[in-house]
Amino acid sequence: MSDAKLLKQTYVSLINHRLNELVDFKPLPQKELFEAAKYSLLAPCKRLRPLFVLSILHGYGTPLQLGLDPACAIEMIHTYSLIHDDLPCMDNDDLRRGRPSLHKVYPEGLAVLAGDFLLTYAFEIITTSAKLSNSQKLDLITILSKRSGAKGMIGGQVVDLASEGQSIGWDTLHFMHLHKTAALFTACLEFGGILADVPKVDRAALLSCGRALGVAFQVIDDLLDEPSQKMGSDFAKEKATTVSMLGIQKSEEKAKLLLDEAFSSAKKLSKQCSLLNALIKELYSYIPSLSY
Amino acid sequence: MSDAKLLKQTYVSLINHRLNELVDFKPLPQKELFEAAKYSLLAPCKRLRPLFVLSILHGYGTPLQLGLDPACAIEMIHTYSLIHDDLPCMDNDDLRRGRPSLHKVYPEGLAVLAGDFLLTYAFEIITTSAKLSNSQKLDLITILSKRSGAKGMIGGQVVDLASEGQSIGWDTLHFMHLHKTAALFTACLEFGGILADVPKVDRAALLSCGRALGVAFQVIDDLLDEPSQKMGSDFAKEKATTVSMLGIQKSEEKAKLLLDEAFSSAKKLSKQCSLLNALIKELYSYIPSLSY
Repeated sequence: MSDAKLLKQTYVSLINHRLNELVDFKPLPQKELFEAAKYSLLAPCKRLRPLFVLSILHGYGTPLQLGLDPACAIEMIHTYSLIHDDLPCMDNDDLRRGRPSLHKVYPEGLAVLAGDFLLTYAFEIITTSAKLSNSQKLDLITILSKRSGAKGMIGGQVVDLASEGQSIGWDTLHFMHLHKTAALFTACLEFGGILADVPKVDRAALLSCGRALGVAFQVIDDLLDEPSQKMGSDFAKEKATTVSMLGIQKSEEKAKLLLDEAFSSAKKLSKQCSLLNALIKELYSYIPSLSY
Repeated sequence: MSDAKLLKQTYVSLINHRLNELVDFKPLPQKELFEAAKYSLLAPCKRLRPLFVLSILHGYGTPLQLGLDPACAIEMIHTYSLIHDDLPCMDNDDLRRGRPSLHKVYPEGLAVLAGDFLLTYAFEIITTSAKLSNSQKLDLITILSKRSGAKGMIGGQVVDLASEGQSIGWDTLHFMHLHKTAALFTACLEFGGILADVPKVDRAALLSCGRALGVAFQVIDDLLDEPSQKMGSDFAKEKATTVSMLGIQKSEEKAKLLLDEAFSSAKKLSKQCSLLNALIKELYSYIPSLSY
């Protein structure tokens, strides 16, 4: 196994272990809330977002322990957004991460509250973390609230929801991708920059790297969701995707170009971030025509 | 009009004006989100929670401007909790603050997202406020995330939801009141304490004042919701309330005792907080047998 793969595996274990610790509450009257949150938060998945946070710390030689809680906070924001997004009044998805969605296993109201809990808890984790300086905490909270808020992720979800069954243009689709998906990816790399206290000039490269990565991830997600038998979840909902707009080949080219862009931004950093590079390389392999 | 009434009116105007400013975004693709958030946030109401925050600043001679944004952040948390609480999968309430609930006017998915937005935005407002010191911001964020989180307001909502149609004991009802309602009231007085930088000894009095006030408010709410014609919303949902458990007279006595307790905690403060005292006095007048 390559060094990068081994490192990634170790980091994923650490993230999973810490996530588990963070929601491991003693029995309380509201214990069902913690069980519901755990069901979604601890479902097996790639942990791509927290890995991106930690990849910057690794590259700059910053102790991993400094970034573990903030990385988990981002995973909580991501998980809450999936829980709320799957609700019947939103995307109405019955499956998530290969298992029934939270609201199919627990009462729907509890799913709403579990999402609210993870969203609120993300901020509590950062503000109470013993390892961060006050200014780091505030920088992280500013980034997290903006990127996941109305001018970030939630803004993208709103436009996504409003566009269902509508004929939309490329600008609207790009707005959705930039906000719904790329905003939180950008936050991951910005988190890395704050935690590793990178030089100012590196912050711009992290920002453009995160943005390109996020849009690339969404295009790849659209490609993987592509309903060759017209059965994809987005197809059933008459949602516009990169593929429905550009076709498969052009979407694959677009994903590749965006990953190239992310890669070249990563190369501009004053430190070589080997894990970041490895994670970007792995994303290339998800582009169907490039996977072999 | 008494001084306290005039002051209260002025403060309510300032709060409403600032809330309006905070959600007054330029036209953006996600503008429907801001319209939905405004519909709920700017509905006419008493603004009791932000008033409690500002009443402490007034008592300690702290500039009001310091507390306006944090007070609005608490109102946003309160409003988001009402929006989510009203959803069909939660309390399924069609009316709120005398108007149709948000999800009756806008798509239900947008109501979920408007709640998520207000919750996230509350933290952004505090962390980006130019008027607060770093340590004040972090203290406020810690209090807000804890009091509105799983061991505070959300925890109370979970037990409330699970108790519907169940036979519950006094302990469970008290847990619900303390968490669902009193936690955020407590946060208001704690916010006041942080913003006015009150002596340490005053913080304990603020905490017990907030807790007593919050439970009193919930008991009064139960009394006002009391279905003399068995038509109250909680009655229809077979929800246990103070009144269904203790009867009207004992509930009124309980509310009065709790307000007495809040009043005596307020008297222990090193400064006389005239607006706080006036707000507590006003709550007595909502107890049906004491209103005249």
